[in-house]
Amino acid sequence: MRLHAADQYLVAPAEAGLLEVYRALEGSGLYPPFPPVELPGGVGGLLLRGGFAQTFFFPSEVLGVTFRTPKGRVVRAGGVVVKNVQGYDLVRPFVGSFGLLGEPLEAVLRLRPGQASAFLRKPFTGTFPELAPRPRFLFALEEGGAWWLYAYHYGPKKEVARFRESFLGEAVEPLDLRPRFPRGMGVGEGPLKDLRFSWKDGGEAPPPPEPFRLLARAL
Amino acid sequence: MRLHAADQYLVAPAEAGLLEVYRALEGSGLYPPFPPVELPGGVGGLLLRGGFAQTFFFPSEVLGVTFRTPKGRVVRAGGVVVKNVQGYDLVRPFVGSFGLLGEPLEAVLRLRPGQASAFLRKPFTGTFPELAPRPRFLFALEEGGAWWLYAYHYGPKKEVARFRESFLGEAVEPLDLRPRFPRGMGVGEGPLKDLRFSWKDGGEAPPPPEPFRLLARAL
Repeated sequence: MRLHAADQYLVAPAEAGLLEVYRALEGSGLYPPFPPVELPGGVGGLLLRGGFAQTFFFPSEVLGVTFRTPKGRVVRAGGVVVKNVQGYDLVRPFVGSFGLLGEPLEAVLRLRPGQASAFLRKPFTGTFPELAPRPRFLFALEEGGAWWLYAYHYGPKKEVARFRESFLGEAVEPLDLRPRFPRGMGVGEGPLKDLRFSWKDGGEAPPPPEPFRLLARAL
Repeated sequence: MRLHAADQYLVAPAEAGLLEVYRALEGSGLYPPFPPVELPGGVGGLLLRGGFAQTFFFPSEVLGVTFRTPKGRVVRAGGVVVKNVQGYDLVRPFVGSFGLLGEPLEAVLRLRPGQASAFLRKPFTGTFPELAPRPRFLFALEEGGAWWLYAYHYGPKKEVARFRESFLGEAVEPLDLRPRFPRGMGVGEGPLKDLRFSWKDGGEAPPPPEPFRLLARAL
């Protein structure tokens, strides 16, 4: 893993764990585009599934990706230009492609600064609430028959303090959810939900539209 | 043009003019992801060039696009789901594809609310300054041998007032820049710059990377 703190990005091999990234960033005041939750496949798995728990546009936080296509071609898409997209974007279709475009090898992730962070949970009522300030990550997890709403936020000190006060939950530690997905994490009714999907042990990829299949065959 | 004000999006034919969109939004309190500047090719041209003057990630503001591929296939990518990307993203590679993936037919654009707006200019020093508050759009235009920095911002009343006070420029009207690009707008040293490119009359598309050519051939 290579941290470029001044330029606020991280180059991570696909197999890097999500909590491993958090450990690498300790003390830097920088945060990655995922919550402190370990999931199957680490950074690479996260990219293939299009992120986890974000309340923002996740693909724009992936500045670059190197992947091996189904035909064995190694494609390097995007780069480390943080501010702008120069067009010809192959990073964004790869993010959330559920393996159809190939296997990730390395990712360049945008980091964002924060003075403080908070990871909280409270009972989940079945729907995701509108929160102010809006936490950067929100998900629901079933534990022993009960559902909990988890929220993780980072940012300026005052904003994180206001989040703590308004969310009214209990503080939690980083989670390892890999044991909940021994057969892999896919889409389907399961023990985990975020704003995009329900996630299931051994769940599947959503059916791809036909033009996307063409793209997959071309690469 | 079909305005869905409650859901904050607009469906526009590719040939719609950018100022035409502004007129359609008058009184709605909603703003499109481009400044009040008419450019060659209207909405379709804007999509092909990957936006204009934005200081944010433009592709995420394009919720969907229908386009005709070089082989004549009509592809409908994305849709009107505002909050999230469900994976399999063909919208983002189309945005900024400079015609390589085909011709746009229709676009679904995210709109954002604003209570006020301001369009200002002042002399351009040759580099784009860091501004606070950061305007949503920033570009430099050569007029009669002199370069001007143009900034357009919309948002909450107080924020727009702070932008006016800090930018210290003169107010300007919507611009029609089409006469400056009679042979079409492309990349190259010319009379217009934004944070991504210099724009030239009769300018070219940036050279596409090889995997993107493969994608173009597949569609």
